[in-house]
Amino acid sequence: MPSPPDFTDDFRSGLITLLRWRRDVRRFEPTALPEGTLERLLELASIAPSVGLSQPWRFVVVESLKRRTAVRDCFERCNAEALTRFSGERAALYARLKLAGLDEAPCQFAVFADHTTRQGHGLGRMTMAATIDYSAVMAVHTLWVAARAEGIGMGWVSILDATEMAEILDTPPEWTLIGYFCLGYASEEHDMPTLERECWEHRRPPVVIRR
Amino acid sequence: MPSPPDFTDDFRSGLITLLRWRRDVRRFEPTALPEGTLERLLELASIAPSVGLSQPWRFVVVESLKRRTAVRDCFERCNAEALTRFSGERAALYARLKLAGLDEAPCQFAVFADHTTRQGHGLGRMTMAATIDYSAVMAVHTLWVAARAEGIGMGWVSILDATEMAEILDTPPEWTLIGYFCLGYASEEHDMPTLERECWEHRRPPVVIRR
Repeated sequence: MPSPPDFTDDFRSGLITLLRWRRDVRRFEPTALPEGTLERLLELASIAPSVGLSQPWRFVVVESLKRRTAVRDCFERCNAEALTRFSGERAALYARLKLAGLDEAPCQFAVFADHTTRQGHGLGRMTMAATIDYSAVMAVHTLWVAARAEGIGMGWVSILDATEMAEILDTPPEWTLIGYFCLGYASEEHDMPTLERECWEHRRPPVVIRR
Repeated sequence: MPSPPDFTDDFRSGLITLLRWRRDVRRFEPTALPEGTLERLLELASIAPSVGLSQPWRFVVVESLKRRTAVRDCFERCNAEALTRFSGERAALYARLKLAGLDEAPCQFAVFADHTTRQGHGLGRMTMAATIDYSAVMAVHTLWVAARAEGIGMGWVSILDATEMAEILDTPPEWTLIGYFCLGYASEEHDMPTLERECWEHRRPPVVIRR
């Protein structure tokens, strides 16, 4: 067995910089990623923690223009519906936000979670079944930081109808949609979230209580 | 604005090592963490991605011995119940596994998600409400990797009854339990998941389909 790593102060400082500069990217260059990049990142994502070592993440790489257009239409409809929930200044601000990079992102994929997987033999998830979804989310986050370390940005699209997405992507009925993701080179780099720069919301210190 | 970071090959290689050596730790040294460590890690966790910049994570640091004992009792009951779902060799193996470090971990906290938060003004979560939970999960994973970079291990305990946990920890009714976490110095370091070393399950390549 290799000896355990001892991380340096430089590495730790780089990690904090990485976490601070990770962004939800919605503005992409159309430049394709180097061949094999997504596959390598998906391999890395699959060493994320998973409940009972169930590895319940399921990746759907979306290449067909027809399906991409259907995803974009689904987003547009859901986003138009979301806009109707706001009024006045807030609605005007919402309408100005760019919330997805579906038109430009060269690489797009969906992540699902399989609650029916027998991998892991059910360990750890009898009391809290959602840990299957949480495992898939940690695979997403693993991919997100690994991509950013290579200068590749990712955006999470959640303004979608899950039932419609399963039809568009023709996925097994036992898979649950976690999210749809755009991957590519960001056309702008920022250390501040878009929604903070656009004055939609600002970051606050964590809520911590003691018991 | 500071200029965007340019990560080196050394850093990227360190990041992969970190992801490979992150573990779900269940065996802890009783040594306390340096003062302020948890608070610092919670601050870092709160720069995780969150839907609509809602930052819905809620941290409950559990210090009271009485409450810790109640959490441990809850785990023991749920774990005994889980054991009854297995039989034969599998049951014997399950009974031998150490699935939580509740007796030794010097630092323990629960993470909840607040679906009622108005932060973020509902952006991004009208179609997929669970993105609130997923945001809290990404805060957990952020803390997990940041802790590991400092040589601190974390274990996720999910074999718990969420309703009972809310009573034990006396949390607001609108908070949903995401998980309970043990933090401290690991008494063993491994590059292989415990469940793989103990022959419960083995890791597989990711399931990837193309559409």
